[in-house]
Amino acid sequence: MLLEQIKSPEDLKKINKNELSVLAEEIRNVLIKKISRCGGHLASNLGIVELTVALHYVFDSPKDKIIFDVSHQTYVHKMLTGRVAAFLYEEHYDDVSGYSNPEESEHDFFNIGHTSTSVSLACGLAKARDIIGTKEDVVAVIGDAALDGGEAFEGLNFAGELGSGLIVVVNDNDMSIPENHGTLCSHLSQLRGCNGKVENNYFESLGFEYYFVKDGHDIASIVEVFRKVKNTSRPVLVHCCTQKGKGYHFAEIDREKWHWAHQFDIATGRFISNVPAENYGAIAGDYLIKKMEDDPRVVVVAASTPLCIGFNAERRKLAGKQYVDVGIAEQHAVSMTAGIAKGGGKPVFATNCTFYQRAYDQIEQEMCITKCPATMIVTHAGVFGHTNNTHVGLYDIALLSNINNLIYLAPTNREEYVAMLDWSIAQENNPVAIRVPWNGVHHTNRQVSKSYCKTKYNIVMQGEQVAIVALGSFFQLGEEVVSLLNEKIGIEATLINPRFITGYDKALLDALKDKHKLTVTLEDGILVGGFGSKIAQYYSTSNMRVMNCGFSMDIPNSYKPEELLEKNRLTSNQIVEDIITVMRDIGEN
Amino acid sequence: MLLEQIKSPEDLKKINKNELSVLAEEIRNVLIKKISRCGGHLASNLGIVELTVALHYVFDSPKDKIIFDVSHQTYVHKMLTGRVAAFLYEEHYDDVSGYSNPEESEHDFFNIGHTSTSVSLACGLAKARDIIGTKEDVVAVIGDAALDGGEAFEGLNFAGELGSGLIVVVNDNDMSIPENHGTLCSHLSQLRGCNGKVENNYFESLGFEYYFVKDGHDIASIVEVFRKVKNTSRPVLVHCCTQKGKGYHFAEIDREKWHWAHQFDIATGRFISNVPAENYGAIAGDYLIKKMEDDPRVVVVAASTPLCIGFNAERRKLAGKQYVDVGIAEQHAVSMTAGIAKGGGKPVFATNCTFYQRAYDQIEQEMCITKCPATMIVTHAGVFGHTNNTHVGLYDIALLSNINNLIYLAPTNREEYVAMLDWSIAQENNPVAIRVPWNGVHHTNRQVSKSYCKTKYNIVMQGEQVAIVALGSFFQLGEEVVSLLNEKIGIEATLINPRFITGYDKALLDALKDKHKLTVTLEDGILVGGFGSKIAQYYSTSNMRVMNCGFSMDIPNSYKPEELLEKNRLTSNQIVEDIITVMRDIGEN
Repeated sequence: MLLEQIKSPEDLKKINKNELSVLAEEIRNVLIKKISRCGGHLASNLGIVELTVALHYVFDSPKDKIIFDVSHQTYVHKMLTGRVAAFLYEEHYDDVSGYSNPEESEHDFFNIGHTSTSVSLACGLAKARDIIGTKEDVVAVIGDAALDGGEAFEGLNFAGELGSGLIVVVNDNDMSIPENHGTLCSHLSQLRGCNGKVENNYFESLGFEYYFVKDGHDIASIVEVFRKVKNTSRPVLVHCCTQKGKGYHFAEIDREKWHWAHQFDIATGRFISNVPAENYGAIAGDYLIKKMEDDPRVVVVAASTPLCIGFNAERRKLAGKQYVDVGIAEQHAVSMTAGIAKGGGKPVFATNCTFYQRAYDQIEQEMCITKCPATMIVTHAGVFGHTNNTHVGLYDIALLSNINNLIYLAPTNREEYVAMLDWSIAQENNPVAIRVPWNGVHHTNRQVSKSYCKTKYNIVMQGEQVAIVALGSFFQLGEEVVSLLNEKIGIEATLINPRFITGYDKALLDALKDKHKLTVTLEDGILVGGFGSKIAQYYSTSNMRVMNCGFSMDIPNSYKPEELLEKNRLTSNQIVEDIITVMRDIGEN
Repeated sequence: MLLEQIKSPEDLKKINKNELSVLAEEIRNVLIKKISRCGGHLASNLGIVELTVALHYVFDSPKDKIIFDVSHQTYVHKMLTGRVAAFLYEEHYDDVSGYSNPEESEHDFFNIGHTSTSVSLACGLAKARDIIGTKEDVVAVIGDAALDGGEAFEGLNFAGELGSGLIVVVNDNDMSIPENHGTLCSHLSQLRGCNGKVENNYFESLGFEYYFVKDGHDIASIVEVFRKVKNTSRPVLVHCCTQKGKGYHFAEIDREKWHWAHQFDIATGRFISNVPAENYGAIAGDYLIKKMEDDPRVVVVAASTPLCIGFNAERRKLAGKQYVDVGIAEQHAVSMTAGIAKGGGKPVFATNCTFYQRAYDQIEQEMCITKCPATMIVTHAGVFGHTNNTHVGLYDIALLSNINNLIYLAPTNREEYVAMLDWSIAQENNPVAIRVPWNGVHHTNRQVSKSYCKTKYNIVMQGEQVAIVALGSFFQLGEEVVSLLNEKIGIEATLINPRFITGYDKALLDALKDKHKLTVTLEDGILVGGFGSKIAQYYSTSNMRVMNCGFSMDIPNSYKPEELLEKNRLTSNQIVEDIITVMRDIGEN
């Protein structure tokens, strides 16, 4: 096997040019096998095999610096830069993360997980090179969909100002996670159709020297172009056409499904572990489709992650003009959502928790200062969402709950989620965000409130001495804590579902002081700046002691939820132990 | 005077076409007079007089919806939409704010203060129009410099997907706040030079129908084009060339200086109230120029606001290649800064507090997860920075102090600021942000620390019972509180300069418990998610009471600092009163 011999890009360069396609075939098989066992970004990595081989064949990493945008397509890069064992041998599968990672290798420069930053990062490396006076090439590799993100434009727009060399490789696979959106993608498609020759070339309008590679799976032709642009002294762009999912039949056919694959059976293309039939994606999807039928003003806005609310191809078709996918452009998505609300529509924007970070300013400014009545659905929040540090859903509470005029709600089960959605879409006064509990679908027989105009917490069980305020996806943990506390020290604690992350139920908080000495907050997010910190702040001049339970900020590169919970003393046993310690301290004072 | 008769755009339409230039002249005089008295965005409003007249002459606001990007150039729009009194009569000068404001008028749709959002907002209004089934025009008016912001690209890229009408007017005055940057601006300049005809037209590449207006001060020619595009059923772009500062000699010559003008004498063009000779802009500017001379790896990165660190034209020239202005593109600026750090440079990025909001994600991801050793200077922070709700500098602590790996420092005087800058540029381990105290330049004779590797607070005065932790620009307020507390109830309080907004000095905080019953935090920022909330959280399970002093989140549209301080009980007298109340409560319990 050629692949086994490659300990570094130097070894790759020793391979005969004619054998490179054999190597590519090997890589592809290894990719399919590993991902079928562990899950991973299949289709995107299959599409970039030859391109990555060509990059390392021509450029001299790590002297030459290659930055992969989003970096979920760096599996091949990792194989060629000393980490092949992590793909070949099952016992080493966990040795590498799914994204570029400077802790793993000198060939990786940044931890990258969000899109559209590579050109800017490359501009920075090029600027450093120029002031230090070295001569290496800096290469940004960016997918067509990532070009939709505003920062990619900012980087392209700046590159001409550098006054020196920069190479941008566009890996154009004609897909975002779902289908592509935006005029630029039509433009790329036009370029693909005309061998790179069109009247108004976007990249040339931004001052790039433009090269076109028709077949991005033909290593020889990519190598030829890369050799041409190597050592460039100005910004060049290589537009390279590839096929997402290339070489695995099922992935070539359904590229959206195979963008990120669960464990699967290679022969049949069947996923081994499927998404549970009852999940919050489908719940939101069904609810919203029904709502759209009832009210033509309801518009769902997505930013390339429609599956987070169950908007698969079928529901997208059903929604018709009431569904908009703006591509990977969260800033635009939020402002546009604000605009729809202001214009009399009933917009619902949804994306994964981590991607709201891209639009903080638009949420705070256009959406919240102007008080546009829009709904934002926050999925994949909490420790059970994405389990790596670039995508983790633990920062949103600190981010979104400190914005004026925003009502941030935390449902604890299906019934409450739907009630909150229903209320939010109907109301006309405030921007509302809803943090979908990502700890599996729970149900309740209790009545759920239909109105969320005023900040009102819900006392689920009235007790004394200790009050457990268990937010959103940690509500079930709160139930466990209450029961364990009774079991262990006979305290019948009060259990509260606060429902609101923003605002205070002052009457309830004040009343608690009567019979309680300690308020314990549980939240599925970081501690600093979070929900608990507000409760601690509220009681800080009073006699009430407050114990905040949540996560510290240092999230590992990748983690197992159970381990992170334990590390942060967030199992019910640990929490009860800590409550006992604090109660003892109160008793002694 | 024609202007006095205009109570609404309807009245404007009654004016004879030949008299419009007379009206424009009147408007210009009124602008110059008001701004010379009150200060304001002079050059940008002078440049857009005819364009605004033409807009309201052709379109039917508020049925047709006109969205001004950034909206600091809406003075003329306000005059023509029922608010002329606020410009004509001195006693009404304060009736309107400096930005678009839905509370003022149905002709304003959003509170806007940050750039590059107008196209996205307009896309939203157009989408709402299309689903509701009405027929009005939606017009986004955007400056050339605002096109550098990634969101503007996102909006332009999406417009083609709307499948219906949208009008974008580019007000091209060939300037950002300082000179323009980015290849797109060269492209616009090329278009200006060739009557709108070039080989690769950026806007056409994005699917727009493109119109060129050579003289944006010739009302007739603008009106003609607007009439052509009115009722369009597809995205069109009108590129209109104007002159920033048009009609006021001094502003035409020095457009950067006159972008925002202080009170001035009309005849001589001299500012009446000048910036004090000693200011933090000049301090940083002098320091950085010296540092650059000593170390060629030091690079200053700006995003169109170089004056915040004193980088006027002269210092920019001195800095040469060690200075980069990326245009209004904070996302790119932060990622590029991370790239420079990673590449071995010593980057210093600086902008106004409020604009960091645009780059939260890049700071959290590229900069902080990867731990790039870069310096970020945060200016205009606190209540004495910008005094309006879209630009206020009170949110940054909640935003930036809850990011892992970031060290956020708060100097209290000139000596400490310079020491922190010096340390930050030298160290190679962490991203560092420095919150420049914007309450005037103070000095100290005390020794300031040279190292900020470990979170160490500084006890400035040792006392007992009450500890005052006075952060950054509120340190001087802390001194007043300590002195007043002694005067009023004889308590000799401990005064602490925490220096660090992030992290905890646990040893010091634990030691305080011995002789103190109350810790008071003072911060020049919002309370929720802020510095004080961390201290409250730290002590929340203990006996220590904590009183957090800071601002509530609801910032008025525009405010006077003294009034906002008083409203939030932040005068030294109010704080001491509140401390006395809490101390009494502690005594009784």
